[in-house]
Formats: sequence, C-alpha cells, structure tokens
Amino acid sequence: MLATVIHAARDIRVEDVPDPQLSTGGDAVVRVVAACVCGSDLWPYRGVTPTREPHRIGHEFVGVVESVGADVRQVQPGDFVIAPFYVCDGTCANCRNGVSTSCLQGSWWGGDDRVGGVADGGQGERVRVPLADGTLFVVPGPVADDEVPGLLTLSDVMGTGHHAAVSAGVGPGDSVAVVGDGAVGLCAIIAAKRLGATTIIAMSRHADRQALAREFGATHVVEERGDEGVAAVQELTGGIGADRVLECVGTKESMDQALRSARPGGMVGYVGVPNGGPELPIRQMFNRNVGVNGGVAPVRGYIGELLRDVRSGAIRPGLVFDLELPLTEAAEAYAAMDERRAVKVLLRP
Amino acid sequence: MLATVIHAARDIRVEDVPDPQLSTGGDAVVRVVAACVCGSDLWPYRGVTPTREPHRIGHEFVGVVESVGADVRQVQPGDFVIAPFYVCDGTCANCRNGVSTSCLQGSWWGGDDRVGGVADGGQGERVRVPLADGTLFVVPGPVADDEVPGLLTLSDVMGTGHHAAVSAGVGPGDSVAVVGDGAVGLCAIIAAKRLGATTIIAMSRHADRQALAREFGATHVVEERGDEGVAAVQELTGGIGADRVLECVGTKESMDQALRSARPGGMVGYVGVPNGGPELPIRQMFNRNVGVNGGVAPVRGYIGELLRDVRSGAIRPGLVFDLELPLTEAAEAYAAMDERRAVKVLLRP
Repeated sequence: MLATVIHAARDIRVEDVPDPQLSTGGDAVVRVVAACVCGSDLWPYRGVTPTREPHRIGHEFVGVVESVGADVRQVQPGDFVIAPFYVCDGTCANCRNGVSTSCLQGSWWGGDDRVGGVADGGQGERVRVPLADGTLFVVPGPVADDEVPGLLTLSDVMGTGHHAAVSAGVGPGDSVAVVGDGAVGLCAIIAAKRLGATTIIAMSRHADRQALAREFGATHVVEERGDEGVAAVQELTGGIGADRVLECVGTKESMDQALRSARPGGMVGYVGVPNGGPELPIRQMFNRNVGVNGGVAPVRGYIGELLRDVRSGAIRPGLVFDLELPLTEAAEAYAAMDERRAVKVLLRP
Repeated sequence: MLATVIHAARDIRVEDVPDPQLSTGGDAVVRVVAACVCGSDLWPYRGVTPTREPHRIGHEFVGVVESVGADVRQVQPGDFVIAPFYVCDGTCANCRNGVSTSCLQGSWWGGDDRVGGVADGGQGERVRVPLADGTLFVVPGPVADDEVPGLLTLSDVMGTGHHAAVSAGVGPGDSVAVVGDGAVGLCAIIAAKRLGATTIIAMSRHADRQALAREFGATHVVEERGDEGVAAVQELTGGIGADRVLECVGTKESMDQALRSARPGGMVGYVGVPNGGPELPIRQMFNRNVGVNGGVAPVRGYIGELLRDVRSGAIRPGLVFDLELPLTEAAEAYAAMDERRAVKVLLRP
C-alpha cells in the first residue's frame, strides 16, 4: 500500500510500504477515507525538530474498519471511525480522568507502538490501530461524503481548539482572545462561541483567515502584535484584558501575547505545541493572577459531544480545509501549508 | 507612636514615628490590636530583596477603627476590622472580578499610597488605611481576645492558603498534595479539607509542623523531596499523582516538586511569592496537561466566607501562631521566624 514517509526536512515521499497486519488481538485495520496535514507536522518538515531516520508521518484520519482482532468489542468491520491523533486504551486511570493523551498504554501514530510493533502513520491507505476499542470512535449510521471534512477535524484540530477553550474555562458571557489563526485557532473560535463567549477577538493578519474567523463567530479582529496587540485587546474589553485567552501557536512570542492579553485573574488555555520552550514568566503571572492550563489535547473524549454539533451543522469546522489533494501529492500538501498557501490540506488515498 | 521600620537586612527597629492623620476623606485610622510577621517579610530581612532606604514594614493586622474621613460609609469608629495585606477600592473592574489585588486604585502597606501620601506598614500602633470602605472588613459584634489570632489569619495566610486551593480547583473527593509547611501551607491544608478533599498529603520535614498539619486535616505526611517525594505522592494516589497540588513556598525547587507531584490533567494552585523566578517548564506541563493557576491572593474577597467558619470554630487557623511578642520586640519576632524557631509570630502593640 501507499503511505507518506518523511526522510528529512522538506523531503516528504509517498512510498510503497507493507500492508498492515493484525497482530495483538486488540487491534484493527482501517482503510483511510481521508487524512490531513497538521501544523505540528511542519516542525519536522521545516527541520525545526530533526528527522534522524525515515519514518511514517501523519496522525489525523477517518476511515472504514476492514478487520479487527479477536478481542475487539466496540468496533467491527464496516464501521466508519474517527481516529484521534494518538492511541489510548480508554480504561486506565488517566483515561478515566479525561486525560487520554496520558494513557498508561498509549502511543503515537508513526512512533513506537508498545503493543505490537511499529505504528503506522495516519497518512496512508491503511492503518493498523492498536487498542482499537479505546482509540476508535464509531460514527453511527451512513456517512455522506460531504461530512468527511467535518468529521476529520474531530481527529485533532476541532477537539484541540475545544480543549483550549475548556482549559481556559470559557463560559457564557466571557470575553475571549484567540492567538493564532491556523486551523486550531479557527476551531478555538468555534469552541469559544459554542461555550457561550460573547466577545471573541481573533488575532489574525490574513484576510482569508479573518473572514473565516468571523464566519466562525469572531466578533472582532486584531491585527496588531506585541504591546499594540495587548492595547487593542484591552480596548475591546473595558480596559483590563480578556477573561480567557486561547493560545494556539506554541512560540515564545505567541505565549507572551496570550499572557499579556489576559485580564488580571484571567486564564490562558494553551494547545500550541511548545516548540523548544518557551519557559513561562511566573512572576508576571503571579502578580496578575493569570493562570495557564492546557496541553496536548485529549480529543478522544471530546468526539462524542462535538460530533453531534458537527452532524447537525451547528458548527462547521470542516471549512478549515481549503485544499484537497490525492495522497500521492502529500509533498505538495506540506509545501502548501508551509508556504501558507493553504490553512489545512485534506488528503484522499 | 511606635512602628516597625526595616533599615537593612537583619536590621529591624521599632521606632517613634509620626501619628497617622486622615487626609483623603476616604481613609480611616485604625488602632492595631494585633499584627504579625509574614514569611514574605523574610525576603527583605534576609537581604534576598534589597532594602534601599529605611521604610515601614508589615502588612497583616486587625484593630479598632479610631476615626474615619468624611466620605467613609461602611466603617465607623469603634468597629473591629480585619485589614487584608493590601489596599483596594472594592469597586473597580478587577475588584468586581474578584481580583482585588489588582485593584486599579490599589496600593500596598508600607509602599506608596496613590491617594494620600506614604502608607503606614501594618506593624505599628496605628495605621492610616486609604480607601477604608473597600479595604477594611468589619467583624460584627463583640470580639473576644482569644478570637484575635484566628481573625488575624484572615488578613493574609488563611485567605492565601484558601486561594491556593481555589486556584487549583480543589473539590469533594480530590487528592491534594501541599508543598510547604509554613503558615500558608498549613492554612492550605485547612482550605483543602474545608473544600472536600479526602486525601491530603502534607510535604513536611518538621515534627511540630507535621503534627499541626495532621490536626488541620492532613491524612498523610511525606518527608521526602525530589524524585523520592514524587514517588511517595504517587504511591498515595494510585500511582498517578495528586489531583491538585498547592504550592506554598515560591522557590524553583518547590514549584518543580509541585508540578511533578500532580497527576496528568492535574492543577497546581500556587501562592508562594516567586522569589526571582522560577520560570515554568512549559513543555513538561504541556505533555502532562498540568496547569498552573494562582498568584497574589485576593484575600479581601474571601474574608466573609472564611470568617463564619473561624468564628464557629469549624476551622482554627489561629493555631499557626506559636509565638506572641510585644510590638517592641519585633526584631526578635523576625529572628525567630528566620531561624525557624517559630512558624508565625503575633505582635501586640
């Protein structure tokens, strides 16, 4: 079968690889209907994180179950499933606490699979899914093709944006500033609106993303950064800053922007993968009682509640996909996102 | 009148200073019934923070109102009052949001008073209180002398321990680890129990403080630090770490202990004044979804609810005072706390 392999920075290839085989009794093989490229895939693509040897890449996909191991109970061949961007058993203490990204048996697509050999990446024709019962979410009933993009966002970006909002404690009537206008930041806007925020400030400098931000519920757009960005947020929030700030980038600059855009007593919900830092300035946080909460989003636990709103059309996160390519053109998908020609690319095997 | 003045590291003097005078219309003069020394007073005492010129010191006191300015409405002569460790108006946007330590008109005892000249410190015979209506909390009815220590804790340490617990989101059934066995850490144990925690782990190496911790509600004591301390907390919490950790020290080591003692998805509530750092390791926090929330505690807003439990005897934070001295012996009070001969010293003018 075909699958995407990263060999080095800017060297993405779609190669013929062995077909996945059931091996543990608790696993499943899924035929991928759609996969996509994540902003965090760009770190190795850009060489910011090193690629020491060629390996599978991609961690967001939806598909149809082809076969399951003898011990699988919740999933059966023919099911349309959403895979979160990680593997989890759903039963350990951390999973029960809602932190399935810290599953005691968990693993990552394309990384080591603790229970059955090297894991496939998500960008391929098929994927062997370890711990299928805990990992895969079965979408009930028939799935129309135009539902696929929306469902695919539940694999990562919509759940991750939601996690930023939940971690920040967004509630009815809140003012919320969103730092980052990538797919996660845009989904964080959807999440903030869904949770009742009434002032939603998108910090964005790209006209097309600003338009999507407004469509998703942003009430204001701030283009400024740094001190001017802070001042602009304060002006929109009675002079004190936003109740909640959603940090969806992961750089030192974006976290600084987030912390300073929060009002005293406010909370920053962060989901941007911290890229080699930053370290948080605790004295500044202490003096203003600004908290920081979040991390790698346990999206598996959010799929159920978000799925209802996606299928009803109440939220439309699938709009973040502005380019669709065949899997064989994965290299172009990476380039398009790297060069900001696309917000997010959907790949069809 | 007499008041405590710090001249330099380890140079605390009780000196004759001018009597305070009403000056703004919104202020009050309070005769101090009891004051105390705070752990954070030890930073200048030890020279960790420099004392550039002699100034008043002390920020926790209770007393009786002697006179009020023409505009004061909530406070009158003869009232027994609790002063929080800062000045606030109670009406600005930040005060209304429950973050009175970020009051837009606020100031600090012994520092600059924005609305009426240099502020008194709390360790003196009398104190001029700017913004008396917002700052002072009137204790209803007669106050017995043996109630004074408990009431005095509402000026800072009990409210600060409570803030750690509230910031960490302590709730019924939670497991809580408390880092720090000073007066604030001990009060944090009281707060955790009061909010329903069922496993409360005091991290303490001092027998007398361990005993008080257990009296306040600690179910376990951990003496180990570092990796061994983390392992001990995990062993008491099903192998994963505490739901909530209350950081009540403010050093790099204590925050590290707190972050690592929390379970994935847990929250650190911190109130230890960060002493020149530490910077928080965001990648470690991100990977485990451990949040950090807290800061300089807005205790003024907590006095009402805590006062009920102090007066009913449901909580007994006054027990943190293990030494009482006349104001004239303030220098000995600082030395006793510095040398850990006392947990917390109460001063009587």
